[in-house]
Amino acid sequence: MLKGRNLVDPEDFTLEELESIFELTQEIIENEKDFNDVCRGKILATLFYEPSTRTKFSFEAAMLRLGGQVIGFSEPGSSSVAKGESLADTLRTVGAYADIIAMRHPNEGAPIHGIEYCPVPLINAGDGGHQHPTQTLTDLFTILDAHKRLNNLTIGCCGDLKFGRTVHSLLKAMSRYENVDFFLISPHELQIPDYLMNELKRKNIKIHEEERLENVIDKLDVLYMTRVQKERFFNEADYVRLKDSYILDLEKLKNAKENLAILHPLPRVNEIKIEVDDDKRAWYFRQVKNGMYVRMGLIAKLLGVR
Amino acid sequence: MLKGRNLVDPEDFTLEELESIFELTQEIIENEKDFNDVCRGKILATLFYEPSTRTKFSFEAAMLRLGGQVIGFSEPGSSSVAKGESLADTLRTVGAYADIIAMRHPNEGAPIHGIEYCPVPLINAGDGGHQHPTQTLTDLFTILDAHKRLNNLTIGCCGDLKFGRTVHSLLKAMSRYENVDFFLISPHELQIPDYLMNELKRKNIKIHEEERLENVIDKLDVLYMTRVQKERFFNEADYVRLKDSYILDLEKLKNAKENLAILHPLPRVNEIKIEVDDDKRAWYFRQVKNGMYVRMGLIAKLLGVR
Amino acid sequence: MLKGRNLVDPEDFTLEELESIFELTQEIIENEKDFNDVCRGKILATLFYEPSTRTKFSFEAAMLRLGGQVIGFSEPGSSSVAKGESLADTLRTVGAYADIIAMRHPNEGAPIHGIEYCPVPLINAGDGGHQHPTQTLTDLFTILDAHKRLNNLTIGCCGDLKFGRTVHSLLKAMSRYENVDFFLISPHELQIPDYLMNELKRKNIKIHEEERLENVIDKLDVLYMTRVQKERFFNEADYVRLKDSYILDLEKLKNAKENLAILHPLPRVNEIKIEVDDDKRAWYFRQVKNGMYVRMGLIAKLLGVR
Repeated sequence: MLKGRNLVDPEDFTLEELESIFELTQEIIENEKDFNDVCRGKILATLFYEPSTRTKFSFEAAMLRLGGQVIGFSEPGSSSVAKGESLADTLRTVGAYADIIAMRHPNEGAPIHGIEYCPVPLINAGDGGHQHPTQTLTDLFTILDAHKRLNNLTIGCCGDLKFGRTVHSLLKAMSRYENVDFFLISPHELQIPDYLMNELKRKNIKIHEEERLENVIDKLDVLYMTRVQKERFFNEADYVRLKDSYILDLEKLKNAKENLAILHPLPRVNEIKIEVDDDKRAWYFRQVKNGMYVRMGLIAKLLGVR
Repeated sequence: MLKGRNLVDPEDFTLEELESIFELTQEIIENEKDFNDVCRGKILATLFYEPSTRTKFSFEAAMLRLGGQVIGFSEPGSSSVAKGESLADTLRTVGAYADIIAMRHPNEGAPIHGIEYCPVPLINAGDGGHQHPTQTLTDLFTILDAHKRLNNLTIGCCGDLKFGRTVHSLLKAMSRYENVDFFLISPHELQIPDYLMNELKRKNIKIHEEERLENVIDKLDVLYMTRVQKERFFNEADYVRLKDSYILDLEKLKNAKENLAILHPLPRVNEIKIEVDDDKRAWYFRQVKNGMYVRMGLIAKLLGVR
Repeated sequence: MLKGRNLVDPEDFTLEELESIFELTQEIIENEKDFNDVCRGKILATLFYEPSTRTKFSFEAAMLRLGGQVIGFSEPGSSSVAKGESLADTLRTVGAYADIIAMRHPNEGAPIHGIEYCPVPLINAGDGGHQHPTQTLTDLFTILDAHKRLNNLTIGCCGDLKFGRTVHSLLKAMSRYENVDFFLISPHELQIPDYLMNELKRKNIKIHEEERLENVIDKLDVLYMTRVQKERFFNEADYVRLKDSYILDLEKLKNAKENLAILHPLPRVNEIKIEVDDDKRAWYFRQVKNGMYVRMGLIAKLLGVR
């Protein structure tokens, strides 16, 4: 039962619980009209202590498409709630007005602290560099959407794997499924952190580290792209030598599988050329839409209306 | 008839009119679902010329739970309406889009000026240090909720009684009911202003002034707590001598009546210790929820849908 | 068929298409309740890259009164969407959440660029000094509302005709109808730009240029007022000599026709004295309300629900 539960970390849910959310999400996509009223009379509060228009819109559209309503703020400055009052009191107050809360907070751990006091289900909409579980659910659902399975997959993650929280969460989440291989494609200085590498190795996940996307793109079922910023390279020579390896274009895609699914958490800058957008392997805009549908499924489950 | 009326000052309404709002509020609490549609097709505009997330959320949730909709802004900076245009023209314009307006404005008297031009009911959601009538309605309703009466009560107000507009409004509002005694608990320099004291005395209200909460807590049916800021004391010695008297903890509550109702307009800082939150005499979070329900009753009455 | 179309420039629509929007608008005004549900389940996104509370409220109220819902932002600062991401990607993302988008952008041409990528209908809610087509539709509809026709009219435009985009758009829009005469009333230095004068002359529009409103007010069926700022005059002498000519008061109205319709895009400062507000020839507040109704008609048409 997910009714009344919180979502702070993607691992808060069992694989069965995730599956039940994904099944409901699929049902919503196929019969959206049937869900237009299920949250009638319910209110979602979006408390965004740091701005994230994209994520806020996705939550709001999700609740509105379920027939619910939304209150919220989008920046600390515009919130007197932020001044002087404890987070606990804010959540108790907002929980008097709303039936469910999505909170984005710059401080790691704010949601874990918050659920102690929040009288209604609390969804972590991102806490600093730590977790962003609804993005992870979106990524998993989009992989499922593309391949109809979450096991027996070869997944490439490309770009800045050191600082990208979405990649870390995806790696941890996918490592719960059977027979998943990872190709980690990044410059040496932007490899995933040691603690995460050790955690994955303990689970006997097969991991291959690579410097160049073109060397391995033919092996992948899923390619998760992220941005590499120049200033994160240790030296200019490495940057010049490698930068083009982390930009996806139609040329590199020539060697890719026919059913490769390209994902990106967005926003992108130039790490995927726009010429790729019309390729049927480009799933990143469908991923955006899936994010809204997954949040619909999640909200409906936590509110217990489905 | 409250249909089409404005609310600028709590005394705009007769005791009978207040009673009709409180009766409707109680009906809403008991049968919330019956009211989910009564404002369908109506729009509330929340014009907040100074930020107050808590009050704005309360109005918005109230309208949404009645099946209505909301437009609004939360800060002067985000409103081009604020630039150059007269308040009269702004209200006429917004009154073309909305069916009812809740306005918070830093200038005392802005709402009194506004109702001359506003084509739809205008609710004062706070005008500077002057009035905040929906807070007063919330306080009255919560006292009624706790004691089932608004007469024959002993009410303590504790903390900064000089600058606290919620206390001033509550004193004036309660002085309209029969046989209400007041204990005003504050340091000498933070007593209620002379004009208010004289007004209350003219009405033959019984007023007792006290420096220490612990001396009188056993006599109270209602305790209205507010914050005392260090910088408002005249001298350090007084502050050191008295500061703990204005902090409510379980120790002080030992001598209080079993059915004492503790209220606070929130946000609190440390004037009520969190150990008090779970005591059944703590009514301040229920007061928050009542604030939303009272606003539902008020909006429904002013729009004439009930 | 207007379903699925965009509105970037008022001339995107044929006269027949405009007429169909105005007919629907009239139907909505007469039977608003019949339209309370036609956009149920649909979402409008209001992307305001520069603030315009008035226009944003008008769009939002329009969508809400059709039974739809709204997401949006009101300032670039409050939008992480604005950072780094291309406008094309933003529109594709927001178009995954919303069914229709109203965008205000400081850059001329942003909407023309945007419709290439936007997966849902895009309405230009103002692009810099360039176009503001829903204002033009509002102006046309209000003239129609007042005179029951859009041809055989004498229209005065008064004030700053050089920089006022609403006047330019109105002139171009009205020049598409038969037998419309224009009186352009402004100081010499604030006459309409040459390119526009040439364009109108090519269409054989009758144009009379005047320095003083009082000289021609008796000839007008419509008077479109705009503000003249002191700093736009070339010299102090001209300003002193002419300034009162561009302020409409009851004195000047004595010579006007009984059925003159006074319009103003608002906000006004002092170019129309408030004594004029209660005159039956003052249509500018009804124009505000018409703006909401026209947007209701437009949204319903573009979404294909009517």
